[in-house]
Amino acid sequence: MFSLDKKVQLSFEGTIQRLTEELKKEGFGILTQIDIKDTLKKKIDQDFQPYIILGACNPHFASKALSLNDKIGVFLPCNIVVQQHADDQVQISIGDPEEMMKAASNPALMSLAHNVKKSMERVLSNIS
Amino acid sequence: MFSLDKKVQLSFEGTIQRLTEELKKEGFGILTQIDIKDTLKKKIDQDFQPYIILGACNPHFASKALSLNDKIGVFLPCNIVVQQHADDQVQISIGDPEEMMKAASNPALMSLAHNVKKSMERVLSNIS
Repeated sequence: MFSLDKKVQLSFEGTIQRLTEELKKEGFGILTQIDIKDTLKKKIDQDFQPYIILGACNPHFASKALSLNDKIGVFLPCNIVVQQHADDQVQISIGDPEEMMKAASNPALMSLAHNVKKSMERVLSNIS
Repeated sequence: MFSLDKKVQLSFEGTIQRLTEELKKEGFGILTQIDIKDTLKKKIDQDFQPYIILGACNPHFASKALSLNDKIGVFLPCNIVVQQHADDQVQISIGDPEEMMKAASNPALMSLAHNVKKSMERVLSNIS
């Protein structure tokens, strides 16, 4: 699996709000927010379910990663998908930092990715 | 290697402009732009070289990828780093779509990633 997933008993907007709060506790700010439903409608007139990609970044982790490999920005920020399925169930999927960093083949980066994964697991466990 | 890299004989800003033009020819729009130098200065008062992460997306490719796996948004958009080294040399690094998608273990997604990689190789070859 390439993502950490959780279905939640919250509204779509409520999930984004709770994620933002829990990420902040772990030192992650939201740097980007892509509305896929909106983008697909505007660009190719395709209907899609509510689907947001949040780009979260902890500047301390990012700085450490960049000091280990200055191209590591291609893996940043940490992407978090919030989508609402046809049955209205809202699901969070966080890109698994360890899976993402595997391609870099660097033990120090893997150790950092492990810490980011622990942060993300705490975020998910605190959201219901 | 996890990225497609090229050093260019252009200014930092000129590189971003040329990338935007060439990506457009391949059907990719820039959805996000993260200024890492600015972010690290503001958040943790750390100096860093000029460093931008562009998030590029081709809505047709994105729609196809999402139809194959609705969690694939954790790999979107395609990240492109532009950085200026201490010797003023500007370098582009594009996350290798094939390396990124490996974790998804899906042949149809790998085929799509191969096409995205070909687009990105054309973008890089057209920029000097």
